[in-house]
Amino acid sequence: MRIDAKRLLADLRELSQFGKYKTGVNRPAFSSPDIEARRWLCSKMAEAGLAAEIDRFGNVYGRTPGVQRAVLVGSHTDSVPFGGWLDGSLGTIYGLEIARCFVERGKGDIGVDTVSFQDEEGTFLSLLGSRSFCGDDVRAEVARAKDKDGNSLAAAIAGVRLPDRDPARLNPARHLGFFEAHIEQGPRLEGSKFQIGVVTAIVGIRTLRVQFVGQADHAGTTPMAMRRDAGAAALKFGTLLTESLKSSAGADTVWNFGGITFRPGAANVVPSEAELFFQARDTDPATLETVERRARELADECARFFQVACDIAVVLNVPPTTMDAQLASFVDRAATELGAAHIAMPSGAGHDAMVLARCIPAAMLFVPSINGRSHDITEDTSEDHIVTGAQVLLRAVELFAESRRVPLAAV
Amino acid sequence: MRIDAKRLLADLRELSQFGKYKTGVNRPAFSSPDIEARRWLCSKMAEAGLAAEIDRFGNVYGRTPGVQRAVLVGSHTDSVPFGGWLDGSLGTIYGLEIARCFVERGKGDIGVDTVSFQDEEGTFLSLLGSRSFCGDDVRAEVARAKDKDGNSLAAAIAGVRLPDRDPARLNPARHLGFFEAHIEQGPRLEGSKFQIGVVTAIVGIRTLRVQFVGQADHAGTTPMAMRRDAGAAALKFGTLLTESLKSSAGADTVWNFGGITFRPGAANVVPSEAELFFQARDTDPATLETVERRARELADECARFFQVACDIAVVLNVPPTTMDAQLASFVDRAATELGAAHIAMPSGAGHDAMVLARCIPAAMLFVPSINGRSHDITEDTSEDHIVTGAQVLLRAVELFAESRRVPLAAV
Repeated sequence: MRIDAKRLLADLRELSQFGKYKTGVNRPAFSSPDIEARRWLCSKMAEAGLAAEIDRFGNVYGRTPGVQRAVLVGSHTDSVPFGGWLDGSLGTIYGLEIARCFVERGKGDIGVDTVSFQDEEGTFLSLLGSRSFCGDDVRAEVARAKDKDGNSLAAAIAGVRLPDRDPARLNPARHLGFFEAHIEQGPRLEGSKFQIGVVTAIVGIRTLRVQFVGQADHAGTTPMAMRRDAGAAALKFGTLLTESLKSSAGADTVWNFGGITFRPGAANVVPSEAELFFQARDTDPATLETVERRARELADECARFFQVACDIAVVLNVPPTTMDAQLASFVDRAATELGAAHIAMPSGAGHDAMVLARCIPAAMLFVPSINGRSHDITEDTSEDHIVTGAQVLLRAVELFAESRRVPLAAV
Repeated sequence: MRIDAKRLLADLRELSQFGKYKTGVNRPAFSSPDIEARRWLCSKMAEAGLAAEIDRFGNVYGRTPGVQRAVLVGSHTDSVPFGGWLDGSLGTIYGLEIARCFVERGKGDIGVDTVSFQDEEGTFLSLLGSRSFCGDDVRAEVARAKDKDGNSLAAAIAGVRLPDRDPARLNPARHLGFFEAHIEQGPRLEGSKFQIGVVTAIVGIRTLRVQFVGQADHAGTTPMAMRRDAGAAALKFGTLLTESLKSSAGADTVWNFGGITFRPGAANVVPSEAELFFQARDTDPATLETVERRARELADECARFFQVACDIAVVLNVPPTTMDAQLASFVDRAATELGAAHIAMPSGAGHDAMVLARCIPAAMLFVPSINGRSHDITEDTSEDHIVTGAQVLLRAVELFAESRRVPLAAV
């Protein structure tokens, strides 16, 4: 089977018109452009011969009729505010195109179902669509969730007037596995001239809020030795932890001090309080434990040195997710067959595949991001890479379906 | 001469009722309590036999009638929001009491004039009162000035309906020198059991805004080595400068990182921008130059290492002010005569005396601050220390006046 490159690119371009903003899209979950894009996608699935529906959360699910088993392929069509045109749209349109190819071929007992999950980006509730699809009881969270401006998710759901249909649901008897393609969102593939990343695992994420509490003092009249400077403790902690992780973390561990606040925050007042947000990611849970332990040790050390109090809270703890080795091997084999340069790599970002992997075998395929950009209107991927990615994924799905075909002798 | 301790403390307590807030006062410049306090002070000066007036900015000035020459003694009665009951009020009531003592003595050709300057704390325009008193043309600044909530100074002046009287003015032919008493606002005197600080100089202040600009990247998908992390540069810079100043700054140099901001500020985004506010104070201008040079060198070094851009702006540059040695020697001698333990020290905070010192000889006297607290409702000084400070200042003024008395033979 071959994907129809022209049709694939036309669909991607058409989808990018919903919420178009300069070279990107502004299509947060439950915005009008998001819902319009989902209705459009549903009609495209129906045109392709799938039984397509939108549920009350906005998940768009297209089922291949006439088969009892299917490979699930898809991603999400919501975007971050003023984000890129590809992101989850790429994997969603791959799903549409691959399902279309299978329908057009018209034979085989295993079909392709395709899906666009709602709010992967967490405008209201991160991974809402894939979690409800996989059977998480999200009702209490849905009732509570608000966007950053304080608008409630419940009001947003009521406002978009979707059919009051129970969420589309994963059916492990039907859904043999899940493939999700995505842009890399980083510079590794481009930098090393690979066309395809075969994702081995999605990193775990641990975010710590580190607080130092000392005493506010006049920065002119208080001798240095008599201060309890929460800000100085925070600066030292940040530097020491960075130095320490350079040698003690794994080769692929990444970390970030993304936010810092001193209070009261005036140039002439010694900070009484300093708060840092530190985040580490790795595919190995033991490494994340080591990083957190090292952060705690160094925070205590700095707190003692500067005579301040210290508190560390884990504000996010997402365990790593290993991709299914067999499914990943089909991506690898497809790329090899098609002569696409490929490399095994972790995903440094979270994806719906993390959720699906808890229920069924799941794998991911990356295509290169130009300059590594994502979540920004400058996000892009060359058409060649887009088409190659789709072809490799189609072949991987085909290989997987073949591996699960019931031998004729057994029918 | 002896000050009347009971009267002095009663006046201080009465003044603290204006804008009283718990154990402190909330009396920012041009607030109703500030203006009421100034009207009250003006009436107290008149009761004491002074020719007293309030000018259009709210400066309260009490002139001893019948003398051609006078020692000026005073401070300010405005407070920071929710500040302490003493701060500038102490030196203002010392001025009232000392002028009263001189009037009551009723002889001598040198009197005492007393003053409460407006907005020393900079609610709208720092040192407005003393600067206008000393002849600075502040009209353009007054027209521009706003408080932190955006209210204009011009509207505040119009709103309080003070007499449209030209600002009270320094008269160098009349005003032989200026004495200002103040609480120390730091812990040195209390910690070493001294009753009086003889101020040698008011520190210069240099505030730098240090900005690093790199690139925002996904903190999960961007390898550490490919980042241009403005936040990491800022953390390293803060730590390196602190380490460096410990050895290269003067023994009395103080510095502070009072504020820091990372942008965009999300835990999962590598900061594209980091901004730090760094402030250093010293009585030696050369030391402040050295500190600024060192900050620039280290910022450049960090910027190169992290491949980010760097910009340093001097946002405040107040030169140090040396107190008049002769006036300070009278404070020292008065303390010695009265058996008050005293020590020479710099002032780490700015005061109206900085402005006056540009025009006439000026000196300052400090009394201990309990626990070094100030600009807070916990600010306090023991009654013993308050009374001793007033007595020492009265004696210093007396010694100064005696030194300037025209010998009888010359009359």
